Amino acid sequence: MFSDNDLVLMERPVFAKLAMHMADGSLQNTVMWFRADAGILRMIAPEASMKARNLSRDPQCAVVIDDPANGYRYLEIRGRAEVVRDDTAARRELRRIAARYIAADADAYVDALSSEPRVMIVIHPERVRSHSGTTPAPRAD
Amino acid sequence: MFSDNDLVLMERPVFAKLAMHMADGSLQNTVMWFRADAGILRMIAPEASMKARNLSRDPQCAVVIDDPANGYRYLEIRGRAEVVRDDTAARRELRRIAARYIAADADAYVDALSSEPRVMIVIHPERVRSHSGTTPAPRAD
Repeated sequence: MFSDNDLVLMERPVFAKLAMHMADGSLQNTVMWFRADAGILRMIAPEASMKARNLSRDPQCAVVIDDPANGYRYLEIRGRAEVVRDDTAARRELRRIAARYIAADADAYVDALSSEPRVMIVIHPERVRSHSGTTPAPRAD
Repeated sequence: MFSDNDLVLMERPVFAKLAMHMADGSLQNTVMWFRADAGILRMIAPEASMKARNLSRDPQCAVVIDDPANGYRYLEIRGRAEVVRDDTAARRELRRIAARYIAADADAYVDALSSEPRVMIVIHPERVRSHSGTTPAPRAD
């Protein structure tokens, strides 16, 4: 489902833009840390957060992962999110995710989090559109 | 609705991530050129494109505008899109939008587009969440 070029981008500590359905029929689109493993995306959020509640109610989501150094290089991923209610597993995963973004500060960051339960958001891609950015894609085509 | 810091970010030729409802209940999240004027966002797309059809059917959308130099600085905008079916106006607006991104090449780019009709997507923000990025926002809070 992913090209080698896609996987290289997903390995980098870039930011995912995660879109979900809201309860009232509107949409939420937010920015997330993530870690990809074998094409599956993992993110962490408080169980009480809007995003965890949105995805628990409706698992459908759409993620953009873009290269900050080249706005024409990005992935559009449509899929479904599984919300795993396991605070211990979520914090363990968060150490791995945070290490991608803040390296040596990751453990201190996770240790300083509140005790509010976290969930693991596991996104299973169903459709991927890849924009390599080697030629600027026209934005009006 | 927007702070001065938000407006400075929106003036820059950064890329908008535009999330919309698909007909089947899933979501589309894609990357767009845009131009903001008095807090209103304008984007151009072919009338036959998935995004134009999605927004014509359901105007609700959610946009992320992020700073490629600082992933913790971004805006989340929820609003409604008006799809204006006026090819002449859309191409005129596209010259202004393209000038933001490709400067001197903008007119040649617009002149080289196919004759397939374009629409103007006008997004009226209803709710804005602003993340200044001056302190990295925890991604698990």
